[in-house]
Amino acid sequence: MASFSKRMDGVTGSAIRELFKLTARPGVISFGGGNPSPAALPDDIVADISRDLVATNGKVLLQYGMTEGLPTLREALVPYIEEEFQVKADVGTILPVTGSTQAFNLLLDAYTDPGDVILTENPTFLGATQAMHLHQLKVVPVDSDDEGLRMDALENAIKWHHPKLLYTIPTFQNPTGVTLSLERRKKIAALAEQYDLLVAEDDPYHSLRYSGMSLPTIKSFDQAGKVALMGSFSKVISPGLRVGFLVCEPQLMRKCVICKQSDDLHTANLNQAIVEAYLRKDLLKPHVAKVCKRYGEQLDCMLSYLKTMRGVQRFTHPEGGLFVFAWLHEGVNATDMLMKAVEKGVAYVPGTYFYPDGGHDNTLRLNFSNADLATIQRGMSLLDDCLKA
Amino acid sequence: MASFSKRMDGVTGSAIRELFKLTARPGVISFGGGNPSPAALPDDIVADISRDLVATNGKVLLQYGMTEGLPTLREALVPYIEEEFQVKADVGTILPVTGSTQAFNLLLDAYTDPGDVILTENPTFLGATQAMHLHQLKVVPVDSDDEGLRMDALENAIKWHHPKLLYTIPTFQNPTGVTLSLERRKKIAALAEQYDLLVAEDDPYHSLRYSGMSLPTIKSFDQAGKVALMGSFSKVISPGLRVGFLVCEPQLMRKCVICKQSDDLHTANLNQAIVEAYLRKDLLKPHVAKVCKRYGEQLDCMLSYLKTMRGVQRFTHPEGGLFVFAWLHEGVNATDMLMKAVEKGVAYVPGTYFYPDGGHDNTLRLNFSNADLATIQRGMSLLDDCLKA
Repeated sequence: MASFSKRMDGVTGSAIRELFKLTARPGVISFGGGNPSPAALPDDIVADISRDLVATNGKVLLQYGMTEGLPTLREALVPYIEEEFQVKADVGTILPVTGSTQAFNLLLDAYTDPGDVILTENPTFLGATQAMHLHQLKVVPVDSDDEGLRMDALENAIKWHHPKLLYTIPTFQNPTGVTLSLERRKKIAALAEQYDLLVAEDDPYHSLRYSGMSLPTIKSFDQAGKVALMGSFSKVISPGLRVGFLVCEPQLMRKCVICKQSDDLHTANLNQAIVEAYLRKDLLKPHVAKVCKRYGEQLDCMLSYLKTMRGVQRFTHPEGGLFVFAWLHEGVNATDMLMKAVEKGVAYVPGTYFYPDGGHDNTLRLNFSNADLATIQRGMSLLDDCLKA
Repeated sequence: MASFSKRMDGVTGSAIRELFKLTARPGVISFGGGNPSPAALPDDIVADISRDLVATNGKVLLQYGMTEGLPTLREALVPYIEEEFQVKADVGTILPVTGSTQAFNLLLDAYTDPGDVILTENPTFLGATQAMHLHQLKVVPVDSDDEGLRMDALENAIKWHHPKLLYTIPTFQNPTGVTLSLERRKKIAALAEQYDLLVAEDDPYHSLRYSGMSLPTIKSFDQAGKVALMGSFSKVISPGLRVGFLVCEPQLMRKCVICKQSDDLHTANLNQAIVEAYLRKDLLKPHVAKVCKRYGEQLDCMLSYLKTMRGVQRFTHPEGGLFVFAWLHEGVNATDMLMKAVEKGVAYVPGTYFYPDGGHDNTLRLNFSNADLATIQRGMSLLDDCLKA
């Protein structure tokens, strides 16, 4: 066998997805994934919608579609994106994609060459880091605090490294749950224009807010076409359907469409149409409201328990999303502790995986969306036992 | 705006897909696309299957899935691939993908670096050529005749260019409709082993045979793990669902899975489950038999008409698939003629687009799957008028 491509060098696949296989033992309470709660997956509604859509419009939905997406979904996305993300877009600047995972991959395809520098939060989403490595980018993590990316660190990194791109999850970040402040959102849009930097704004958790006020996206402050917004219906309808969207300026959009042609030709029509039905029939808002009530209670439950845990040094206080990030005491290694925790019956993701440069061994990410209140209590109690041991 | 990536240089998007926008006037008979007939899209059955699947297994199908695919679909693909493609695979060497378009893209990601040489048939599928350009490969077309790739030309090209990959559509090729002979299939598997060449065998039309004997795949003769087989349910169930599969040796498979993680995380579960239902409920064979009967009549109709056309110098005689390829008389330019043809009310794709090095201006590709018999007659008559003019 000849050698694989250079882009595969040192890329070993998502450590998290491998970890899940190890920790997915029957009976183990998982705070590890980023899965929606089974109760939040609207199977009854989607079952009926699917049948109705295929029965009434099957000859269109089962046929080839346009790479640019189902025209009627793009139309429905215009008011949705304006209301939910405060971004004025038109059908020509919105691309339905196969999850925001694909949106980011297309941006990297269209905009980056091997060796280019990309800035990220520190820590950041592992899936995004992997896509950066597969594009042979130089990943430069930028320090973050309780309001997200630190502006001094960001501007220094821009001046020093001349990055082509900044990847950021400004709202209920993965893995920290932290939200970028309003002032910093404005500042990032300004820096992007000043330094000719493309901002890839990944906002899949945007609608999952349980307290506090919704903030406008970075894209809403973008006067220069330097911000690409990526959204997803994975967290608010279903991840299994694989539908998200990309909003960016037309020239970049055109390049992304060309890349998508070679990637998968188009996003499956039925899946796009199901999302469209959610928007047009006004099913999304009541569903999200129901989900937010549930997840908000679960978050409160987890935070309350964390406060009581002596083994936890500090933890983030998210107002939404799916994750809390915690620091154990210095010297405690969350990776070493994981298999013991799984033996006891609880799993999480060690925080070190989310730091592009590693380290931070005393951190961990806890998901609260995928377990009910009693299960969260029980799991946190098991975790507490581990820390006491 | 900073510059786009180097991989976008000179890549302008599929000329065919742009052409379709121009020729898609109401009332124009299109021999241009590669679309299944609307009558061949099983909307009634898929409507019921979708509802039943989501109603009974929605909590699984709407949740995140594995990048490796729905385990039950992979299991169902094992006997299907063995029976239909004569390839003994196991679940670990089968990857459900988002159409064979994605399969090829993953192979290029995993296996090629910019500057590598890839061999193709001449002419070949434009979508594949675009993917090659986006991967910055050097595309070397190899002469083909009525039995597919010429073996002398292929071996010369291998010795001369040291390619990493050969891309081939051995059965009812796009755009020619030609099928690679049995002897040449064996020979390609042997050459792949001898010269350490990876063969990307694209076989989406395999089941659409209307006459003659089915031939084993190149992959079926692959003793050395040097052939990757790509299949699709686009032509036999629905292209809008975007489900295909890749079969290759485990090391390469592992790399493709890693690339797919970053590409789209996984293929939508519902779409995989619909295909699985077709296989498990034995719905595929009777559906394909019905479709083949229809398409076979349409092919015969088109071939009969072609025989009568003085303006046509020669044409291929496919035993299946979706396309016939025709040569007009020397000096006639099929691209120049196209807009006149559309004015008259008929469209096709000029053959020159399928030749990586251009030229061959007197050729055209005709699709016969998307029009009924009367429409084919009428369209061919209009085309005949164009040629006489």
